[in-house]
Amino acid sequence: MTIGIGLLGLGTVGAGVASILASPEGRHPLVAALRLQRVAVRDLNRSRPTSPPAELLTTDPEAVVDDPGVDIVVEVMGGLEPARTLILRAIAAGKPVVTANKAVIARHGEEIAAAAAAQGVYVLIEAAVGGGIPIIEPLKQSLGSNRIQRVSGIINGTTNYILSRMAAEGAAYADVLADAQRLGYAEADPAADVQGGDAADKIAILTRLAYGGTVPRGAIPTEGIDQLEARDVAYAARLGFVVKLLAVAQLMEAEGEHASSDHPLLDVRVHPTLVPSTHPLAGVNGVNNAILVEGDPVGQVMFYGPGAGAGPTASAVVADILNIAGIRQATGGSGGSLDPLLAAGSWRTCSLVEGSLTTHRNYVRLRTRDEAGVIGKIGTCFGEAGVSIQSIVQFAAQDQDGGDADAEIVVITHEVLEANFRRALARIEALPEVESVAACLRTL
Amino acid sequence: MTIGIGLLGLGTVGAGVASILASPEGRHPLVAALRLQRVAVRDLNRSRPTSPPAELLTTDPEAVVDDPGVDIVVEVMGGLEPARTLILRAIAAGKPVVTANKAVIARHGEEIAAAAAAQGVYVLIEAAVGGGIPIIEPLKQSLGSNRIQRVSGIINGTTNYILSRMAAEGAAYADVLADAQRLGYAEADPAADVQGGDAADKIAILTRLAYGGTVPRGAIPTEGIDQLEARDVAYAARLGFVVKLLAVAQLMEAEGEHASSDHPLLDVRVHPTLVPSTHPLAGVNGVNNAILVEGDPVGQVMFYGPGAGAGPTASAVVADILNIAGIRQATGGSGGSLDPLLAAGSWRTCSLVEGSLTTHRNYVRLRTRDEAGVIGKIGTCFGEAGVSIQSIVQFAAQDQDGGDADAEIVVITHEVLEANFRRALARIEALPEVESVAACLRTL
Repeated sequence: MTIGIGLLGLGTVGAGVASILASPEGRHPLVAALRLQRVAVRDLNRSRPTSPPAELLTTDPEAVVDDPGVDIVVEVMGGLEPARTLILRAIAAGKPVVTANKAVIARHGEEIAAAAAAQGVYVLIEAAVGGGIPIIEPLKQSLGSNRIQRVSGIINGTTNYILSRMAAEGAAYADVLADAQRLGYAEADPAADVQGGDAADKIAILTRLAYGGTVPRGAIPTEGIDQLEARDVAYAARLGFVVKLLAVAQLMEAEGEHASSDHPLLDVRVHPTLVPSTHPLAGVNGVNNAILVEGDPVGQVMFYGPGAGAGPTASAVVADILNIAGIRQATGGSGGSLDPLLAAGSWRTCSLVEGSLTTHRNYVRLRTRDEAGVIGKIGTCFGEAGVSIQSIVQFAAQDQDGGDADAEIVVITHEVLEANFRRALARIEALPEVESVAACLRTL
Repeated sequence: MTIGIGLLGLGTVGAGVASILASPEGRHPLVAALRLQRVAVRDLNRSRPTSPPAELLTTDPEAVVDDPGVDIVVEVMGGLEPARTLILRAIAAGKPVVTANKAVIARHGEEIAAAAAAQGVYVLIEAAVGGGIPIIEPLKQSLGSNRIQRVSGIINGTTNYILSRMAAEGAAYADVLADAQRLGYAEADPAADVQGGDAADKIAILTRLAYGGTVPRGAIPTEGIDQLEARDVAYAARLGFVVKLLAVAQLMEAEGEHASSDHPLLDVRVHPTLVPSTHPLAGVNGVNNAILVEGDPVGQVMFYGPGAGAGPTASAVVADILNIAGIRQATGGSGGSLDPLLAAGSWRTCSLVEGSLTTHRNYVRLRTRDEAGVIGKIGTCFGEAGVSIQSIVQFAAQDQDGGDADAEIVVITHEVLEANFRRALARIEALPEVESVAACLRTL
């Protein structure tokens, strides 16, 4: 039995996939059953270091989807359109789809999943999150016995590279970004990475798999690292933390109750976060990704590895192809039912919790006049709002602007209700001794 | 559709499985389709804090296997017999098996796999390695597109607990072991853990999955931590390493050649190892486990989490049950072919490389007379045997025995051929200035 593969896109990931298919020896024997049938490219004449035979190439992606010899459609072209339309076209033709396209799944996942369920075909997306790290399959096939309490991860390599260098070198965000762009670790337009949108796409996908229901991608509170100052990275280090861009999906639960297990209330968000230096995510540096899953009864498990790159991403894409090929062999190709774990349909309705009802630890940096008693006043404001404080530290005054050398006070709270925290901050901002709330970051 | 589960054993893991099945809400909906049908226990009258209904219990494990309402047999009794016989009995009856029993799989895996293949049933073993960490499923279903270069892991929680405390406290092995036994982290007879046998069982299992062929369990070179001295842990720390009990399976390959991809030559072993403190495995402490998989094209991916315990292990057992239930749904229960990824049969012949042909970095501690020129002589012995040295350090002489205060010299080599290393050591031992080769450890 050979299985015809239609490839939409021959960029770095597509070329990586073609390269695996062209050299099956030493891999799982099922790889040898995969035959590259047709490849859609944008430009036939572009020179490629290694390329499938010229007769497989076409500039017409629909011809790839429609080719009767194509059994599985692999979408690695990226972008929302025509990717979405081509995926739906493949599904309509009863062809399973493998895609690495997190944007299209995060935004059109529900439409695509509904079409796939109606047609009884798989749409697999291992490469959409965490590059080569197996995280989608384990969430679907290895952790289903758990009540997932939290999924938190470093799932954007560009920002983690920038943050790692800011921490190691004490460098400013803008300088490291420019260098990362020069080295190819950040794109010319870095907005999707540094503003957190890419991580939000990915946590939306992980949330659906971990909790069995879709959350609205556009409603995920998202904060990037583009406003982060070097001094906050430095202060965090002195207090025993590293700053990471975390994407988090967390189950809110009335204590001891499982009454709402059909309608879980979730806190999903993306923001720079102070992570204690002893935490498993703290040591994840450079372009690596890691996803920590906490569940009952498994406890904490973490998945770590290269979050991007041609090879790792192609590894994940071909893994999905193999899974479809494997189950095809088990079912004898008869289009019966789907394996509900592999198909991973939604099974319940998830809602996002209102922000003011969430609880967090917080890091706050205040610029104040260097006067006696200011720490006491700040402490009082927090206390009166019901915000308990873990530490409050005055750092050596720094003079950036050539003006007066004011004081900087850093407060780390315990886990407190967001509404209370905001109320305290409003009072603190109104204190005459406080010049500004200069930074405000979440803390694990 | 409900699926009847027959449980062999109601110890901590069995009770954990029963507890998950009894409370499906908030877990994957497929859990609700699982019905605990029959449970084999040793003693009906033993008091259990929570227990399945008394009418499900029996002291006759064969009755569980033979019960027509049992669709999947779950073996969590441990030990070689009667576990092996009961697993084979289930297979013969055409019933898929889930087992957490690493000993029986490491020793009788081939026999069990052959029987399962002949009957066309799955035998799933996620819980046999790494407790709750998804590692078996990812190796089978997420990394098949790779040529696996190396699998290395901390896969015994007891020894990692002991090593973590030795490192943190500078304590002696025997003292920490006694304390671990008192706290329940080590068994009264700790031999299987501290002598490396448990880790060897597990690396034998991982090797078969990563490389598609069985290696003889009894031929795996295995060294435990029971001879490890506190001073070597301390010296390692001063040189930037932590000592971990690693289990390693590594592909030996003529450079650039894949000619032997049908008959891979493997270096599989278990031994205490100096791990650079910046390495991803170095930060794995306490009873946690972690497995690092290196492959082409994925690069390095790591799986981390709780390596033992009722909850984590039960999570893995139920994951396997769900996988069988899921694929059963896809195939309509018709006993057709098996999914080759999930079934994970052997597909090639693996051999263990002869020890003298392996290459390693090494840590050697020598007790010598405190005389000028001894470092030069040692260096010369290594050099003449073709062993290049990374560092050679004399530590402050320590006097343990009330005798003369001799010198201790620690050498760390580059990666060198084992045969050359042994030749050098023999010459060094013959030097009149050298009293003994006091310790010899592998180094990453």
